[in-house]
Amino acid sequence: MEKRSRLRYGMVGGSLGAFIGGVHRRAIALEETADLVAGCFSSQNEKNQKTGQFYGIGQDRIYKNYQEMAQKEKEREDGIDFVCIVTPNATHYEIAKAFLEAGIHVACEKPLCFTVEEGQELEQIAKEKKLCFAVTYTYTGYGMVKFAKELIEKGEIGQIVNVNAEYLQDWLIDEIGGGDQTTTKMSVWRTDPEKSGISNCVGDIGTHIEDTVAYMTGLHPKKVAAVLDCYGMDLDLNANILVEYENGVHGVYSCSQVCAGHLNGLVIRIFGSEGSIEWVQEDPNYLKVTRKGQPTQIYNRGTGCITGMAAKLNHIPSGHPEGLTYAFANIYHAFMQEVLDQINGETGDGQDYDYQDVSDGVMGVKFIHAVVESSQKGAAWVEV
Amino acid sequence: MEKRSRLRYGMVGGSLGAFIGGVHRRAIALEETADLVAGCFSSQNEKNQKTGQFYGIGQDRIYKNYQEMAQKEKEREDGIDFVCIVTPNATHYEIAKAFLEAGIHVACEKPLCFTVEEGQELEQIAKEKKLCFAVTYTYTGYGMVKFAKELIEKGEIGQIVNVNAEYLQDWLIDEIGGGDQTTTKMSVWRTDPEKSGISNCVGDIGTHIEDTVAYMTGLHPKKVAAVLDCYGMDLDLNANILVEYENGVHGVYSCSQVCAGHLNGLVIRIFGSEGSIEWVQEDPNYLKVTRKGQPTQIYNRGTGCITGMAAKLNHIPSGHPEGLTYAFANIYHAFMQEVLDQINGETGDGQDYDYQDVSDGVMGVKFIHAVVESSQKGAAWVEV
Amino acid sequence: MEKRSRLRYGMVGGSLGAFIGGVHRRAIALEETADLVAGCFSSQNEKNQKTGQFYGIGQDRIYKNYQEMAQKEKEREDGIDFVCIVTPNATHYEIAKAFLEAGIHVACEKPLCFTVEEGQELEQIAKEKKLCFAVTYTYTGYGMVKFAKELIEKGEIGQIVNVNAEYLQDWLIDEIGGGDQTTTKMSVWRTDPEKSGISNCVGDIGTHIEDTVAYMTGLHPKKVAAVLDCYGMDLDLNANILVEYENGVHGVYSCSQVCAGHLNGLVIRIFGSEGSIEWVQEDPNYLKVTRKGQPTQIYNRGTGCITGMAAKLNHIPSGHPEGLTYAFANIYHAFMQEVLDQINGETGDGQDYDYQDVSDGVMGVKFIHAVVESSQKGAAWVEV
Amino acid sequence: MEKRSRLRYGMVGGSLGAFIGGVHRRAIALEETADLVAGCFSSQNEKNQKTGQFYGIGQDRIYKNYQEMAQKEKEREDGIDFVCIVTPNATHYEIAKAFLEAGIHVACEKPLCFTVEEGQELEQIAKEKKLCFAVTYTYTGYGMVKFAKELIEKGEIGQIVNVNAEYLQDWLIDEIGGGDQTTTKMSVWRTDPEKSGISNCVGDIGTHIEDTVAYMTGLHPKKVAAVLDCYGMDLDLNANILVEYENGVHGVYSCSQVCAGHLNGLVIRIFGSEGSIEWVQEDPNYLKVTRKGQPTQIYNRGTGCITGMAAKLNHIPSGHPEGLTYAFANIYHAFMQEVLDQINGETGDGQDYDYQDVSDGVMGVKFIHAVVESSQKGAAWVEV
Repeated sequence: MEKRSRLRYGMVGGSLGAFIGGVHRRAIALEETADLVAGCFSSQNEKNQKTGQFYGIGQDRIYKNYQEMAQKEKEREDGIDFVCIVTPNATHYEIAKAFLEAGIHVACEKPLCFTVEEGQELEQIAKEKKLCFAVTYTYTGYGMVKFAKELIEKGEIGQIVNVNAEYLQDWLIDEIGGGDQTTTKMSVWRTDPEKSGISNCVGDIGTHIEDTVAYMTGLHPKKVAAVLDCYGMDLDLNANILVEYENGVHGVYSCSQVCAGHLNGLVIRIFGSEGSIEWVQEDPNYLKVTRKGQPTQIYNRGTGCITGMAAKLNHIPSGHPEGLTYAFANIYHAFMQEVLDQINGETGDGQDYDYQDVSDGVMGVKFIHAVVESSQKGAAWVEV
Repeated sequence: MEKRSRLRYGMVGGSLGAFIGGVHRRAIALEETADLVAGCFSSQNEKNQKTGQFYGIGQDRIYKNYQEMAQKEKEREDGIDFVCIVTPNATHYEIAKAFLEAGIHVACEKPLCFTVEEGQELEQIAKEKKLCFAVTYTYTGYGMVKFAKELIEKGEIGQIVNVNAEYLQDWLIDEIGGGDQTTTKMSVWRTDPEKSGISNCVGDIGTHIEDTVAYMTGLHPKKVAAVLDCYGMDLDLNANILVEYENGVHGVYSCSQVCAGHLNGLVIRIFGSEGSIEWVQEDPNYLKVTRKGQPTQIYNRGTGCITGMAAKLNHIPSGHPEGLTYAFANIYHAFMQEVLDQINGETGDGQDYDYQDVSDGVMGVKFIHAVVESSQKGAAWVEV
Repeated sequence: MEKRSRLRYGMVGGSLGAFIGGVHRRAIALEETADLVAGCFSSQNEKNQKTGQFYGIGQDRIYKNYQEMAQKEKEREDGIDFVCIVTPNATHYEIAKAFLEAGIHVACEKPLCFTVEEGQELEQIAKEKKLCFAVTYTYTGYGMVKFAKELIEKGEIGQIVNVNAEYLQDWLIDEIGGGDQTTTKMSVWRTDPEKSGISNCVGDIGTHIEDTVAYMTGLHPKKVAAVLDCYGMDLDLNANILVEYENGVHGVYSCSQVCAGHLNGLVIRIFGSEGSIEWVQEDPNYLKVTRKGQPTQIYNRGTGCITGMAAKLNHIPSGHPEGLTYAFANIYHAFMQEVLDQINGETGDGQDYDYQDVSDGVMGVKFIHAVVESSQKGAAWVEV
Repeated sequence: MEKRSRLRYGMVGGSLGAFIGGVHRRAIALEETADLVAGCFSSQNEKNQKTGQFYGIGQDRIYKNYQEMAQKEKEREDGIDFVCIVTPNATHYEIAKAFLEAGIHVACEKPLCFTVEEGQELEQIAKEKKLCFAVTYTYTGYGMVKFAKELIEKGEIGQIVNVNAEYLQDWLIDEIGGGDQTTTKMSVWRTDPEKSGISNCVGDIGTHIEDTVAYMTGLHPKKVAAVLDCYGMDLDLNANILVEYENGVHGVYSCSQVCAGHLNGLVIRIFGSEGSIEWVQEDPNYLKVTRKGQPTQIYNRGTGCITGMAAKLNHIPSGHPEGLTYAFANIYHAFMQEVLDQINGETGDGQDYDYQDVSDGVMGVKFIHAVVESSQKGAAWVEV
């Protein structure tokens, strides 16, 4: 059989106008190696139809619900190779499970799900069925984050001794005081436990800190001591978290959605015995590296100084900014490569399929639960 | 007849792996409203075939040369609506002419062509045939450049009194001294008059300064006094240009490809009697605005402070960087809207099809010629 | 009696070449209103003599020890008006006490002393004897810190909801692992409990965070939960501290002397319900202010936008950087004004003698003790 | 005779409250090695007296005019070693001449004088009488400017190929259109030819560009082609200047006092065949250095990476900002050292008395004249 060079994918969620679905579709389009051929874009029939038609999807592959989609696509010879799940958080678990059980690879928005048990179940199924399962933690897709990881692995900053990371936004500042002023649809579900689970801010953005730090350094929190602030809402809008890693090193994570002037301020600073690294999401094409006793250096995406995966994933010349959509594309690049290799029966020996998977997703859920529990216990240390 | 909602396009140049062709294709993909259905991607047959096949283009629409493509596509009922020209600069003129004469709308990389006469001929044909003709001056596509234009038009910085703009790169620094060290394919043609015309640096990036300033302010140079430096090469690698605009105001433009540490440093600063505006391409999601006597303000793409076209062309939430590819997409957004409106017989009354067109392309060619002539005359003033 | 317009001062510590003594002397010199007339600059006789002679001090006023100096100066008709104490931390208490008991006003380097009891005793004596007592917390002297305080007091950022402050340095990075490599004299005493008390990093720089935040916002920590890292040394080199203020609001303070690339990185960010303020010590002439929903504004020292105390204490035109020494000078400006007013029998009604005093010094000592205790108890909350 | 270790100086101009006189006095005070003992601080008697008394100057050394001062100080055994001239520009020449003729060393504000002939006369007298003559071009006093000079001299950026320097301010923006709104005393004399000579903006700040570039690189303009803008005033408020150096390399200088948002924006960028250097006056403790093909490096005053004169002139630890006053102090440091060495009969062999002198002052005057002449001739090239 001839080897495949393109993939077919379907989408659950992501009707026209929906933000995150559009980002996933465009990211996959930037890769130019997969075609959208099936979908269940909305529970509202009209929206669903309109979206499917816009993308030229055959009428028989615009599905009324995800169960039907999983079943039918499984049965087709030309069924989708993977599904992209971009629905509200509360539904990730059941949808992912359905497609896994249908033997279809999964790319799912974060957070993976609400409970650790759900996550572990998904992990288990994926493992048993040897299915690829990406959890699209956006920021690990940036080339300069990959370069940071490489420098740290090479020992360029020595032993890690301290981590200081934050993710500050301000878009929920009007919720302070209880939110009579709540005006946006998104702010409503973000702060609604039914839709967002046990945490808003930590679940939404705090997990990105955890994941990006873990990706860069290999360090996962062993225990956390956290203070969450709700400012009169049901869920957290702000969090400060002391962290102890498996190796005894400490760090501090801060996340917030009420910090005026900060739009999407993920800032990761890793301090080692020989130097430090700083990456700022709003300026993602740069990496600040200081070797002990040397001037700070500003590494720039796309230049000859960049090596490894970050060099391979360079798309446009240095100085021409690559933005968030390319970070997503990089995740899909790795995920889709693994899917393709599996389909083609290639072992992918020695290949690093460099994306965050279902285990990283489970880690995120564990982190959220530990942080929330710690805060409820007055910032007592809680094991992750 | 039913109104069309999608467009068909073809590409000349842009085989797999070519940089700028890939950017155009991806930019169009981000818009999600046009399909690549024909192409003449390379004069090398194998490359051409491979590229066409990769994009699933029917064998009959992978053309051996652009002449045949223009002719055949003209004859098809389902022929391309527009062509995207991403070939080496020396060939833009003849290719654009062929497609215009076939009645096909054109999007062409800059510079439009080598001589003013060629440009004016293209302008004339497009006008007579009522064809849309975009020249893809990338930087006018950025939302914050559009916002700068809007603020200036509204009089927020008063009367313009001074312009200071630069575009500094360093990728040709090794050409200094005559270029024994010339190693890259691109550096070879950039500094070869046959391939780059009468100017390298001014032609390649100086015109971006001219165009972006003109777009923001409406000011075109009336005359220029310029010093070009070749450092032993045949063509310029560095230029400093005094400018006098139509209204008597002065400015200064600097462009260079030998400035170590500057990758793609287009910086536009417009000074008015009531304030100033600064935009930096390497940090394109921000705009620095100072009203006289007030603190400098940092406007941020995607926030509620942004209005007009810049607000409409917002793709991902504020703080999540949009990069160069989105700037390109914004240009295609406007161009393709006009093409579609024309096809659908819509007048587009009152609509601002906000893209740089063939006239802007001609202006760029005039600018290059005036600058080169001034330098040859020892920085004498030369009318543009 | 004629009113005095100049002051006489003496110094304990601060021999030629000593860093902090020189800063104090120069700061006072910038004010141009006080003369150095007495001193006990060193316990080493030769150094002491040489320093006194360099400054043209009469032989009878170069003292062998501070006790004699306090006694003799007290007895002179032209005795010093105030003493400036710039000795090692371990000796502040006894020296300050001696001069207070001699009825002489005191300006003392921070930390004020080692135990809360010592501090409260000094506070009590100063109060009883109506003596001025400055503790020179440098950073409150910067004009833009004063402007931040003013904006916050005026309610420009609304109710404070979150504080995020850090003070990162890297000069002790070589102590990691136990410090065989210890090379500098200063690093030795900084990490020696006899000389630095119960804390190194928190005592040295963490207290600056506490003091600067308290100065800007009026908020003092009610309780703290802290993790200190010693990396094999006797005293802390790194600390992350969760803070709860008297009003229930939370914050987080991080200080470190092992963060490569950070030299003197005091950064204070105050977040309110209506906006935020950020001040960066290494760029001290600027203040970043964001009003909710508005672009971030960069306020600049010396411009017409600056009001209040910050405007009064402007020394050189905007854009011409004022550095650390002027921050010190501003502290002495206020302290010396109060001393002068008291000498002249003026009530200073309504005058804000804007400097940190012995009570602020006591607060600093309390903060250190609470942080250290918390860390010893595994980051348990400890009342300050 | 015992060697002297301290100097005595007098001041012409600089009454209480005058800006630049105060900066000079404080800068000298930071050095701690000279005493103000004589002065003619103002032509207004009361002001003069009050200032002299404030500084504790004997009644017989508060002079009514500079002629008397030069004469009397010359005759005293304990006469001043040097005079500091901080009067309006129009008077520098005659005052400097008087003191030189009295055999007294001179430190004079810039510009040195109005005509090249005056300047050369002063140069001649100083040379004949072997007198030290500093012209206080502030910016050459900054440590990081000295470090830039050192790196360039060492060849770290190779052969210089391009210079781009600017000095932008905005404090005269209200003069645009003719200045009905003229409100400040300083703006009046700045734009008055009687008081400011043939140029305002170029004379005031353009010369700083010329001097700082020349100091860093050793390159003096051979010829210039300039456009000056007066916007309805008698003198220039804005200038763009093409420069050709003695070695044929080109550069561009821009200076302005109408650029909103720029306070004291002197920015020097030197581009070489092997790298580049950038220094920004508003952030003076840093130096940006890029070696070809390497990441940009940020050098920081006071760190171990800094060598040479910049290391020697380090006053406070790295990260603690040194401001403008220290730049002045560094100039006086070198000037006063030479004066002292001369008084003590020391040859100062091999010592680099690192300050700008009367020859640099003459160069500045030449530059102003060439620029103004070029502008009058329609930006024709004019020899400097």
